Amino acid sequence: MGKGDETRHAILTSALDLSSEVGLQGLTFGVLAKLTGMSKSGLYAHFDSKEHLQCQVLDSAASRFVDVVLAPALKRPRGLPRLQVLFEHWLDWETNEFSGGCVFMAAATEFDDRAGVVRDRLVSHLDDMLGAIARGARIAVAEGHFRSDLDDEQFAYELWGVLLSFHHYGRLLGRPKAHARARRAFEHLLETSRPEIPS
Amino acid sequence: MGKGDETRHAILTSALDLSSEVGLQGLTFGVLAKLTGMSKSGLYAHFDSKEHLQCQVLDSAASRFVDVVLAPALKRPRGLPRLQVLFEHWLDWETNEFSGGCVFMAAATEFDDRAGVVRDRLVSHLDDMLGAIARGARIAVAEGHFRSDLDDEQFAYELWGVLLSFHHYGRLLGRPKAHARARRAFEHLLETSRPEIPS
Repeated sequence: MGKGDETRHAILTSALDLSSEVGLQGLTFGVLAKLTGMSKSGLYAHFDSKEHLQCQVLDSAASRFVDVVLAPALKRPRGLPRLQVLFEHWLDWETNEFSGGCVFMAAATEFDDRAGVVRDRLVSHLDDMLGAIARGARIAVAEGHFRSDLDDEQFAYELWGVLLSFHHYGRLLGRPKAHARARRAFEHLLETSRPEIPS
Repeated sequence: MGKGDETRHAILTSALDLSSEVGLQGLTFGVLAKLTGMSKSGLYAHFDSKEHLQCQVLDSAASRFVDVVLAPALKRPRGLPRLQVLFEHWLDWETNEFSGGCVFMAAATEFDDRAGVVRDRLVSHLDDMLGAIARGARIAVAEGHFRSDLDDEQFAYELWGVLLSFHHYGRLLGRPKAHARARRAFEHLLETSRPEIPS
Protein backbone atom coordinates (compact mmCIF):
# COMPACT_ATOMS: atom_id res chain seq x y z
CA MET A 1 0.00 0.00 0.00
CA GLY A 2 1.56 3.34 -1.05
CA LYS A 3 1.51 6.43 1.13
CA GLY A 4 -1.44 7.89 -0.77
CA ASP A 5 -3.41 4.66 -0.40
CA GLU A 6 -2.59 4.51 3.32
CA THR A 7 -3.86 8.05 3.85
CA ARG A 8 -6.95 7.30 1.87
CA HIS A 9 -7.55 4.13 3.88
CA ALA A 10 -7.14 6.02 7.17
CA ILE A 11 -9.58 8.72 6.05
CA LEU A 12 -12.14 6.12 5.03
CA THR A 13 -11.85 4.34 8.38
CA SER A 14 -12.60 7.62 10.18
CA ALA A 15 -15.38 8.42 7.73
CA LEU A 16 -16.95 5.02 8.30
CA ASP A 17 -16.94 5.47 12.09
CA LEU A 18 -18.40 8.94 11.72
CA SER A 19 -21.14 7.72 9.34
CA SER A 20 -22.06 5.02 11.81
CA GLU A 21 -22.74 7.72 14.40
CA VAL A 22 -24.34 10.49 12.34
CA GLY A 23 -25.44 8.78 9.12
CA LEU A 24 -24.01 9.27 5.65
CA GLN A 25 -25.80 12.60 5.34
CA GLY A 26 -24.04 13.87 8.44
CA LEU A 27 -20.66 12.99 6.94
CA THR A 28 -19.28 16.40 5.95
CA PHE A 29 -15.79 17.39 4.82
CA GLY A 30 -15.72 19.89 7.69
CA VAL A 31 -16.30 17.35 10.47
CA LEU A 32 -14.10 14.79 8.77
CA ALA A 33 -11.28 17.35 8.53
CA LYS A 34 -11.45 17.93 12.30
CA LEU A 35 -11.55 14.20 12.97
CA THR A 36 -8.56 13.34 10.80
CA GLY A 37 -6.53 16.50 11.41
CA MET A 38 -6.40 17.11 7.65
CA SER A 39 -7.40 20.22 5.75
CA LYS A 40 -10.66 20.24 3.81
CA SER A 41 -8.72 20.83 0.60
CA GLY A 42 -6.53 17.84 1.43
CA LEU A 43 -9.67 15.74 1.73
CA TYR A 44 -11.05 17.07 -1.54
CA ALA A 45 -7.84 15.93 -3.21
CA HIS A 46 -8.81 12.35 -2.29
CA PHE A 47 -12.57 12.55 -2.77
CA ASP A 48 -13.77 15.18 -5.17
CA SER A 49 -17.35 15.40 -3.89
CA LYS A 50 -19.49 14.46 -0.91
CA GLU A 51 -21.29 11.87 -3.04
CA HIS A 52 -18.00 10.32 -4.06
CA LEU A 53 -16.91 10.17 -0.42
CA GLN A 54 -20.25 8.60 0.59
CA CYS A 55 -19.93 5.95 -2.13
CA GLN A 56 -16.38 5.15 -1.04
CA VAL A 57 -17.54 4.80 2.57
CA LEU A 58 -20.18 2.31 1.46
CA ASP A 59 -17.58 0.40 -0.56
CA SER A 60 -15.31 0.39 2.45
CA ALA A 61 -18.11 -0.94 4.68
CA ALA A 62 -18.93 -3.61 2.09
CA SER A 63 -15.31 -4.70 1.99
CA ARG A 64 -15.26 -4.96 5.79
CA PHE A 65 -18.53 -6.93 5.61
CA VAL A 66 -16.86 -9.45 3.32
CA ASP A 67 -13.94 -9.85 5.77
CA VAL A 68 -16.04 -10.05 8.93
CA VAL A 69 -19.21 -11.86 7.83
CA LEU A 70 -18.86 -13.57 4.45
CA ALA A 71 -15.27 -14.84 4.47
CA PRO A 72 -15.53 -16.78 7.78
CA ALA A 73 -18.75 -18.40 6.52
CA LEU A 74 -17.16 -19.42 3.23
CA LYS A 75 -14.49 -21.34 5.16
CA ARG A 76 -17.17 -23.63 6.64
CA PRO A 77 -18.68 -26.70 4.99
CA ARG A 78 -21.20 -25.90 2.24
CA GLY A 79 -24.90 -25.63 3.02
CA LEU A 80 -26.46 -25.33 6.45
CA PRO A 81 -23.22 -25.01 8.51
CA ARG A 82 -22.16 -22.14 6.29
CA LEU A 83 -25.51 -20.36 6.68
CA GLN A 84 -25.39 -20.79 10.45
CA VAL A 85 -21.95 -19.20 10.67
CA LEU A 86 -23.04 -16.45 8.29
CA PHE A 87 -25.97 -15.66 10.56
CA GLU A 88 -23.92 -15.60 13.77
CA HIS A 89 -21.28 -13.34 12.26
CA TRP A 90 -24.02 -11.08 10.95
CA LEU A 91 -25.43 -10.69 14.47
CA ASP A 92 -21.92 -9.79 15.63
CA TRP A 93 -21.58 -7.28 12.81
CA GLU A 94 -24.85 -5.60 13.83
CA THR A 95 -23.86 -5.59 17.48
CA ASN A 96 -20.14 -4.87 17.63
CA GLU A 97 -18.66 -3.72 14.36
CA PHE A 98 -19.72 -0.08 14.53
CA SER A 99 -20.17 2.14 17.55
CA GLY A 100 -23.28 3.72 16.06
CA GLY A 101 -24.75 0.69 14.31
CA CYS A 102 -24.53 -0.73 10.82
CA VAL A 103 -23.91 1.95 8.20
CA PHE A 104 -26.08 0.14 5.66
CA MET A 105 -29.09 0.10 7.98
CA ALA A 106 -28.77 3.83 8.62
CA ALA A 107 -28.22 4.64 4.96
CA ALA A 108 -31.23 2.52 3.97
CA THR A 109 -33.58 4.95 5.68
CA GLU A 110 -31.62 8.05 4.71
CA PHE A 111 -31.61 7.26 1.03
CA ASP A 112 -34.88 5.47 0.39
CA ASP A 113 -36.37 8.70 -0.97
CA ARG A 114 -33.28 10.23 -2.56
CA ALA A 115 -32.44 9.29 -6.12
CA GLY A 116 -28.77 9.49 -7.07
CA VAL A 117 -25.42 7.77 -7.17
CA VAL A 118 -25.22 7.11 -3.43
CA ARG A 119 -28.58 5.41 -3.35
CA ASP A 120 -27.61 3.38 -6.43
CA ARG A 121 -24.39 2.26 -4.75
CA LEU A 122 -26.24 1.38 -1.55
CA VAL A 123 -28.83 -0.66 -3.46
CA SER A 124 -26.06 -2.44 -5.31
CA HIS A 125 -24.37 -3.46 -2.04
CA LEU A 126 -27.65 -4.58 -0.46
CA ASP A 127 -28.46 -6.57 -3.60
CA ASP A 128 -25.06 -8.26 -3.20
CA MET A 129 -25.80 -9.12 0.44
CA LEU A 130 -29.23 -10.51 -0.39
CA GLY A 131 -27.65 -12.37 -3.29
CA ALA A 132 -25.12 -13.96 -0.93
CA ILE A 133 -27.94 -15.19 1.32
CA ALA A 134 -29.91 -16.58 -1.63
CA ARG A 135 -26.78 -18.31 -2.95
CA GLY A 136 -26.20 -19.82 0.50
CA ALA A 137 -29.75 -21.15 0.46
CA ARG A 138 -29.32 -22.62 -3.05
CA ILE A 139 -26.21 -24.46 -1.91
CA ALA A 140 -28.13 -25.79 1.12
CA VAL A 141 -30.74 -27.12 -1.34
CA ALA A 142 -28.01 -28.74 -3.45
CA GLU A 143 -26.54 -30.34 -0.31
CA GLY A 144 -29.94 -31.74 0.64
CA HIS A 145 -30.16 -29.63 3.81
CA PHE A 146 -33.10 -27.63 2.46
CA ARG A 147 -36.11 -28.89 0.54
CA SER A 148 -35.71 -29.01 -3.21
CA ASP A 149 -38.57 -26.59 -3.94
CA LEU A 150 -37.23 -23.87 -1.63
CA ASP A 151 -37.49 -20.35 -3.07
CA ASP A 152 -34.00 -19.02 -2.30
CA GLU A 153 -34.95 -15.39 -2.85
CA GLN A 154 -37.86 -15.79 -0.47
CA PHE A 155 -35.42 -17.25 2.04
CA ALA A 156 -33.27 -14.12 1.63
CA TYR A 157 -36.32 -11.87 2.17
CA GLU A 158 -37.19 -13.66 5.38
CA LEU A 159 -33.65 -13.79 6.76
CA TRP A 160 -33.32 -10.10 5.98
CA GLY A 161 -36.38 -9.50 8.14
CA VAL A 162 -34.87 -11.47 11.03
CA LEU A 163 -31.76 -9.28 10.83
CA LEU A 164 -33.68 -6.01 10.54
CA SER A 165 -35.86 -6.92 13.49
CA PHE A 166 -32.72 -7.73 15.47
CA HIS A 167 -31.35 -4.30 14.62
CA HIS A 168 -34.53 -2.68 16.00
CA TYR A 169 -34.85 -4.87 19.08
CA GLY A 170 -31.22 -4.58 20.06
CA ARG A 171 -30.23 -1.06 19.25
CA LEU A 172 -33.40 1.00 19.41
CA LEU A 173 -35.73 -0.86 21.72
CA GLY A 174 -32.94 -2.14 23.97
CA ARG A 175 -34.67 -5.49 24.48
CA PRO A 176 -32.43 -7.81 26.51
CA LYS A 177 -33.69 -10.86 24.58
CA ALA A 178 -32.81 -9.51 21.13
CA HIS A 179 -30.15 -12.17 20.48
CA ALA A 180 -32.35 -15.02 21.71
CA ARG A 181 -35.29 -13.79 19.60
CA ALA A 182 -33.12 -13.51 16.49
CA ARG A 183 -31.75 -17.02 16.96
CA ARG A 184 -35.19 -18.50 17.51
CA ALA A 185 -36.52 -16.69 14.42
CA PHE A 186 -33.61 -18.10 12.41
CA GLU A 187 -34.42 -21.60 13.73
CA HIS A 188 -38.04 -21.16 12.62
CA LEU A 189 -36.86 -20.12 9.18
CA LEU A 190 -34.62 -23.21 8.99
CA GLU A 191 -37.54 -25.42 10.09
CA THR A 192 -39.73 -24.21 7.22
CA SER A 193 -36.80 -24.77 4.84
CA ARG A 194 -35.83 -28.34 5.76
CA PRO A 195 -36.83 -31.27 3.58
CA GLU A 196 -40.04 -33.04 4.65
CA ILE A 197 -38.06 -36.22 5.32
CA PRO A 198 -34.72 -35.25 6.86
CA SER A 199 -31.84 -36.27 4.64
CA MET B 1 -62.72 20.96 17.85
CA GLY B 2 -62.00 24.63 18.74
CA LYS B 3 -60.15 27.01 16.43
CA GLY B 4 -56.88 26.48 18.32
CA ASP B 5 -57.21 22.72 18.09
CA GLU B 6 -58.00 22.92 14.37
CA THR B 7 -54.91 25.00 13.71
CA ARG B 8 -52.81 22.63 15.77
CA HIS B 9 -54.24 19.66 13.89
CA ALA B 10 -53.50 21.29 10.51
CA ILE B 11 -49.92 22.06 11.56
CA LEU B 12 -49.39 18.50 12.72
CA THR B 13 -50.71 17.10 9.44
CA SER B 14 -48.19 19.22 7.52
CA ALA B 15 -45.45 18.33 9.99
CA LEU B 16 -46.20 14.63 9.56
CA ASP B 17 -45.99 14.85 5.76
CA LEU B 18 -42.75 16.80 6.01
CA SER B 19 -41.24 14.29 8.46
CA SER B 20 -42.13 11.47 6.13
CA GLU B 21 -40.01 13.15 3.44
CA VAL B 22 -37.06 14.50 5.41
CA GLY B 23 -37.15 12.60 8.70
CA LEU B 24 -37.96 13.97 12.14
CA GLN B 25 -34.54 15.61 12.34
CA GLY B 26 -35.25 17.56 9.17
CA LEU B 27 -38.47 18.91 10.65
CA THR B 28 -37.54 22.50 11.49
CA PHE B 29 -39.75 25.41 12.54
CA GLY B 30 -38.37 27.36 9.57
CA VAL B 31 -39.44 24.87 6.90
CA LEU B 32 -42.72 24.18 8.67
CA ALA B 33 -43.48 27.92 8.78
CA LYS B 34 -43.03 28.14 5.00
CA LEU B 35 -45.16 25.05 4.46
CA THR B 36 -48.07 26.20 6.62
CA GLY B 37 -47.85 29.93 5.87
CA MET B 38 -47.54 30.64 9.60
CA SER B 39 -44.86 32.62 11.39
CA LYS B 40 -42.22 30.79 13.39
CA SER B 41 -43.39 32.57 16.54
CA GLY B 42 -46.93 31.39 15.77
CA LEU B 43 -45.64 27.82 15.61
CA TYR B 44 -43.69 28.22 18.85
CA ALA B 45 -46.95 29.26 20.51
CA HIS B 46 -48.30 25.76 19.73
CA PHE B 47 -45.12 23.72 20.26
CA ASP B 48 -42.58 25.21 22.58
CA SER B 49 -39.58 23.23 21.34
CA LYS B 50 -38.45 21.09 18.43
CA GLU B 51 -38.50 18.03 20.69
CA HIS B 52 -42.07 18.76 21.72
CA LEU B 53 -43.09 19.14 18.08
CA GLN B 54 -41.33 15.86 17.17
CA CYS B 55 -43.11 14.03 19.99
CA GLN B 56 -46.46 15.45 18.88
CA VAL B 57 -45.79 14.34 15.31
CA LEU B 58 -45.11 10.80 16.54
CA ASP B 59 -48.32 10.88 18.60
CA SER B 60 -50.19 12.11 15.57
CA ALA B 61 -48.75 9.28 13.43
CA ALA B 62 -49.65 6.75 16.14
CA SER B 63 -53.21 8.02 16.24
CA ARG B 64 -53.45 7.67 12.46
CA PHE B 65 -51.98 4.18 12.74
CA VAL B 66 -54.79 3.22 15.11
CA ASP B 67 -57.40 4.53 12.65
CA VAL B 68 -55.88 3.01 9.51
CA VAL B 69 -54.39 -0.27 10.73
CA LEU B 70 -55.63 -1.32 14.17
CA ALA B 71 -59.26 -0.23 14.14
CA PRO B 72 -60.25 -2.05 10.93
CA ALA B 73 -58.61 -5.22 12.28
CA LEU B 74 -60.44 -4.98 15.60
CA LYS B 75 -63.75 -5.02 13.73
CA ARG B 76 -62.97 -8.49 12.35
CA PRO B 77 -63.57 -11.80 14.14
CA ARG B 78 -61.01 -12.55 16.86
CA GLY B 79 -57.90 -14.57 16.13
CA LEU B 80 -56.49 -15.36 12.71
CA PRO B 81 -58.95 -13.28 10.61
CA ARG B 82 -58.06 -10.25 12.69
CA LEU B 83 -54.30 -10.81 12.27
CA GLN B 84 -54.71 -11.23 8.52
CA VAL B 85 -56.54 -7.92 8.20
CA LEU B 86 -54.01 -6.25 10.49
CA PHE B 87 -51.21 -7.45 8.23
CA GLU B 88 -52.87 -6.31 4.97
CA HIS B 89 -53.64 -2.88 6.38
CA TRP B 90 -50.09 -2.63 7.64
CA LEU B 91 -48.75 -3.26 4.12
CA ASP B 92 -51.07 -0.52 2.89
CA TRP B 93 -49.83 1.79 5.60
CA GLU B 94 -46.21 1.20 4.55
CA THR B 95 -47.04 1.66 0.89
CA ASN B 96 -49.62 4.41 0.68
CA GLU B 97 -50.09 6.35 3.88
CA PHE B 98 -47.09 8.66 3.57
CA SER B 99 -45.43 10.06 0.47
CA GLY B 100 -41.98 9.54 1.95
CA GLY B 101 -42.57 6.30 3.83
CA CYS B 102 -43.54 5.43 7.36
CA VAL B 103 -42.43 8.04 9.87
CA PHE B 104 -41.71 5.40 12.50
CA MET B 105 -39.34 3.49 10.23
CA ALA B 106 -37.40 6.66 9.43
CA ALA B 107 -37.32 7.77 13.06
CA ALA B 108 -36.15 4.33 14.18
CA THR B 109 -32.82 4.82 12.41
CA GLU B 110 -32.55 8.52 13.23
CA PHE B 111 -32.98 8.03 16.96
CA ASP B 112 -31.41 4.67 17.69
CA ASP B 113 -28.28 6.43 18.95
CA ARG B 114 -29.82 9.57 20.44
CA ALA B 115 -31.02 9.46 24.03
CA GLY B 116 -33.84 11.84 24.92
CA VAL B 117 -37.56 12.44 25.03
CA VAL B 118 -38.16 11.87 21.31
CA ARG B 119 -36.46 8.51 21.35
CA ASP B 120 -38.41 7.57 24.50
CA ARG B 121 -41.67 8.51 22.82
CA LEU B 122 -40.75 6.58 19.68
CA VAL B 123 -39.84 3.48 21.68
CA SER B 124 -43.12 3.76 23.58
CA HIS B 125 -45.12 3.82 20.32
CA LEU B 126 -43.15 0.90 18.83
CA ASP B 127 -43.64 -1.06 22.06
CA ASP B 128 -47.39 -0.42 21.68
CA MET B 129 -47.35 -1.69 18.10
CA LEU B 130 -45.39 -4.81 19.01
CA GLY B 131 -47.74 -5.27 21.96
CA ALA B 132 -50.73 -5.14 19.62
CA ILE B 133 -49.22 -7.88 17.46
CA ALA B 134 -48.42 -10.06 20.49
CA ARG B 135 -51.96 -9.55 21.83
CA GLY B 136 -53.37 -10.55 18.45
CA ALA B 137 -51.28 -13.72 18.57
CA ARG B 138 -52.45 -14.51 22.13
CA ILE B 139 -56.07 -14.20 21.01
CA ALA B 140 -55.35 -16.52 18.08
CA VAL B 141 -54.01 -19.04 20.61
CA ALA B 142 -57.14 -18.64 22.75
CA GLU B 143 -59.31 -19.19 19.67
CA GLY B 144 -57.42 -22.37 18.79
CA HIS B 145 -56.03 -20.92 15.55
CA PHE B 146 -52.45 -21.00 16.86
CA ARG B 147 -50.74 -23.73 18.86
CA SER B 148 -51.10 -23.43 22.62
CA ASP B 149 -47.36 -23.15 23.31
CA LEU B 150 -46.85 -20.26 20.86
CA ASP B 151 -44.53 -17.53 22.17
CA ASP B 152 -46.57 -14.42 21.30
CA GLU B 153 -43.64 -12.03 21.73
CA GLN B 154 -41.55 -14.17 19.41
CA PHE B 155 -44.41 -13.99 16.91
CA ALA B 156 -44.29 -10.19 17.19
CA TYR B 157 -40.51 -10.19 16.60
CA GLU B 158 -40.91 -12.28 13.46
CA LEU B 159 -43.85 -10.34 12.05
CA TRP B 160 -41.92 -7.15 12.68
CA GLY B 161 -39.13 -8.56 10.54
CA VAL B 162 -41.55 -9.35 7.71
CA LEU B 163 -42.76 -5.74 7.79
CA LEU B 164 -39.27 -4.23 7.97
CA SER B 165 -38.08 -6.36 5.10
CA PHE B 166 -41.14 -5.24 3.09
CA HIS B 167 -40.19 -1.64 3.82
CA HIS B 168 -36.68 -2.26 2.41
CA TYR B 169 -37.75 -4.32 -0.59
CA GLY B 170 -40.55 -1.98 -1.61
CA ARG B 171 -39.23 1.48 -0.96
CA LEU B 172 -35.46 1.26 -1.15
CA LEU B 173 -34.72 -1.71 -3.39
CA GLY B 174 -37.75 -1.19 -5.61
CA ARG B 175 -38.35 -4.91 -5.97
CA PRO B 176 -41.56 -5.55 -7.92
CA LYS B 177 -42.33 -8.67 -5.88
CA ALA B 178 -42.19 -6.94 -2.49
CA HIS B 179 -45.90 -7.49 -1.78
CA ALA B 180 -45.82 -11.13 -2.86
CA ARG B 181 -42.70 -11.79 -0.77
CA ALA B 182 -44.24 -10.16 2.30
CA ARG B 183 -47.43 -12.20 1.96
CA ARG B 184 -45.54 -15.44 1.51
CA ALA B 185 -43.34 -14.66 4.54
CA PHE B 186 -46.51 -14.02 6.57
CA GLU B 187 -47.94 -17.35 5.41
CA HIS B 188 -44.75 -19.09 6.54
CA LEU B 189 -45.06 -17.43 9.92
CA LEU B 190 -48.67 -18.59 10.20
CA GLU B 191 -47.64 -22.13 9.22
CA THR B 192 -45.13 -22.34 12.07
CA SER B 193 -47.80 -20.97 14.43
CA ARG B 194 -50.70 -23.30 13.64
CA PRO B 195 -51.62 -26.20 15.93
CA GLU B 196 -50.07 -29.54 15.00
CA ILE B 197 -53.57 -30.98 14.47
CA PRO B 198 -55.71 -28.27 12.87
CA SER B 199 -58.62 -27.32 15.12
